Amino acid sequence: MIQVEEALSIIAQNSTKMPVQTIAVNKALGYILAETIYSPIAMPPFRQSAMDGYAFIHSERHQYDVIGLSQAGDHSKIKLKENEAIRIFTGAFVPNNADTVVMQEHVLANEKSILITRMPELYLNVRAKGEQIQEGEVVFEANTLITPAAIGFLACLGITEINVFKKPKVAILVTGNELVKPGGKLPKGKIYESNSVMLQAALQTIGVKKSKVYTVKDNLKATKKALKAILKKYDVVLVSGGISVGDYDFVKEALLANGVEQLFYKINQKPGKPMFFGAKKETLVFALPGNPASSLTNFYVYVYPAIKAKMGFLDTHRTKIMRKLNQSITNNSGKTLFLKALYDETNVTVLDSQSSAMLNTFAIANSLIIVPNDVETLKKGQIVTLLSLF
Amino acid sequence: MIQVEEALSIIAQNSTKMPVQTIAVNKALGYILAETIYSPIAMPPFRQSAMDGYAFIHSERHQYDVIGLSQAGDHSKIKLKENEAIRIFTGAFVPNNADTVVMQEHVLANEKSILITRMPELYLNVRAKGEQIQEGEVVFEANTLITPAAIGFLACLGITEINVFKKPKVAILVTGNELVKPGGKLPKGKIYESNSVMLQAALQTIGVKKSKVYTVKDNLKATKKALKAILKKYDVVLVSGGISVGDYDFVKEALLANGVEQLFYKINQKPGKPMFFGAKKETLVFALPGNPASSLTNFYVYVYPAIKAKMGFLDTHRTKIMRKLNQSITNNSGKTLFLKALYDETNVTVLDSQSSAMLNTFAIANSLIIVPNDVETLKKGQIVTLLSLF
Repeated sequence: MIQVEEALSIIAQNSTKMPVQTIAVNKALGYILAETIYSPIAMPPFRQSAMDGYAFIHSERHQYDVIGLSQAGDHSKIKLKENEAIRIFTGAFVPNNADTVVMQEHVLANEKSILITRMPELYLNVRAKGEQIQEGEVVFEANTLITPAAIGFLACLGITEINVFKKPKVAILVTGNELVKPGGKLPKGKIYESNSVMLQAALQTIGVKKSKVYTVKDNLKATKKALKAILKKYDVVLVSGGISVGDYDFVKEALLANGVEQLFYKINQKPGKPMFFGAKKETLVFALPGNPASSLTNFYVYVYPAIKAKMGFLDTHRTKIMRKLNQSITNNSGKTLFLKALYDETNVTVLDSQSSAMLNTFAIANSLIIVPNDVETLKKGQIVTLLSLF
Repeated sequence: MIQVEEALSIIAQNSTKMPVQTIAVNKALGYILAETIYSPIAMPPFRQSAMDGYAFIHSERHQYDVIGLSQAGDHSKIKLKENEAIRIFTGAFVPNNADTVVMQEHVLANEKSILITRMPELYLNVRAKGEQIQEGEVVFEANTLITPAAIGFLACLGITEINVFKKPKVAILVTGNELVKPGGKLPKGKIYESNSVMLQAALQTIGVKKSKVYTVKDNLKATKKALKAILKKYDVVLVSGGISVGDYDFVKEALLANGVEQLFYKINQKPGKPMFFGAKKETLVFALPGNPASSLTNFYVYVYPAIKAKMGFLDTHRTKIMRKLNQSITNNSGKTLFLKALYDETNVTVLDSQSSAMLNTFAIANSLIIVPNDVETLKKGQIVTLLSLF
């Protein structure tokens, strides 16, 4: 049995980055860049007007003849004379020898001429070519997260494909003779299997949209056979159930028989103690407890950072939040506790039922309070650390 | 021109909830429940062992004959005598007249009998039927967000379908003769169109996975025609560009001609001032500024809460965070500022370039600092309010 910090450290050491793939920019939301991107163009690509108004050559003169028009999308070769101006719109090309744009609110105009009533400073309202980025300049360093703004910026530079780290393929293997699929009538002694859809949803929240569920009977032969096929095809395998000490738990044996190296088994925590973590080459295997709340706790605490690391994230953990405790907590267990809790802007409240078999508390919790194994008391009013669940 | 708070209030008043749809539980992540759910079964559905051990009838006796086995999934009709026990595993059915389970670590056992070395209290390690929830009890109230834990809980009660509020169908209409699709060579005077992919990505982050992009030339006739078709089919329409005061901006006229009621036009803010908000029946129309950073700012500030409200969320705004300011901010504009910023655990720093045409700052920002229009100075060290972007 190891401590939580040690478990996290072993997982981090074994969570190697996925290979690189080329992806369309408009499909790249939530991926991590695997290359440094350089701009293929200057942005803006030409001198642009920042206002609707009139472009002219700055001078002492207040009156100008309007000799033409530059609207967004035009590329006019007009060359202005000293006494000439052109009508221009935001984002439009500023003619070669014009140097200043006066906004339309600061002129008196008819169709043929304008009188500037408030003279702008030289160069005002003209965006220089390459003001935002020059051709060849770094757009994004490698390891940048692709956000909506990043997608917009790449697209505005004309970039359509980038290299990112692949997302891992994840399989969920469900074991347990007591489990039946939700939907039908519940036979006596059975319970509905719910961990697979819960884990699939949790995977979706971190960008793993598709994961595959396999179900196997609680026996060694079937479990060994199922794992053999799964280990070849997936980057992360989540086994649900069958990992506690009961005589009928074959999962650990089946994993070892398939060449999965055990990296740890059992963590000094509550809930979620009976967890196996191992690896076969680059493929990670988490055998999670069958109890739903334990399973989800360990997903958030251990599987989440492993998948983030495989996706190329440098910061892999869930957001940690500090809040003031609304009640005292006693921890006589000598274990690290993960308590389902509800925080608001300043405080956090431990929720009533913490049973590892119960998901209803988890469904209304927005965080887990971490009570370290060597802390016996957290006092009301004390600042504690939470893992945010959203 | 109206203030930010007024704009938000008008949008909230007009953002009516979407109709209800029935959806499979395993597809329901991120939806809001439109009904109160009652449990069809008790959970656990029978008395369950909470441990691997032995079930027996509690007494003064320490030695018991082991007469059978109850593993997870079994439903044994065994009736124990006073001196009898059965081997039992976590989650398994506890025989009718057994009342207590002793964990296996607290017995000495051979195949035929056990000696209890540490006597558990009466009823220990037996989960009562319905301990988690009784048949007919409320599982979730209406308006609950469907999280991974909620999906798990619904599934473990055997529930496969629920009623939720639909997600809105969203169209993005892009206007602007200056725009060309990223990929090809950039003709002179043109720029790459990037707002549509940026807005599609932003929509994905709030669960609107598919949105449709329409492109139209910058003229009244084409814009009117495109809008006519779009307004019939979508719940939210985002128009990108063509809404400032330039002579070539036809969007507002085309919207009004199509029966869209103007609810406001222009907000006293920077960036993002030139925005139109209107409605035709239940369909909301946001005509966003063409400048990328203005467009994305207004998406996060205005479109985001409108879509959340339509999806049935009661709390519709992005998470507001309080942080200590790393530098002083002066606001002589009389406008509300939304400043792209980077916060850490305690502090926040305003990023260098705030231009409304520039997305690169946005791509590395994790928040927007809100500087109210009537605040002229925010001092270094002061606590300010941020909108979190992730």
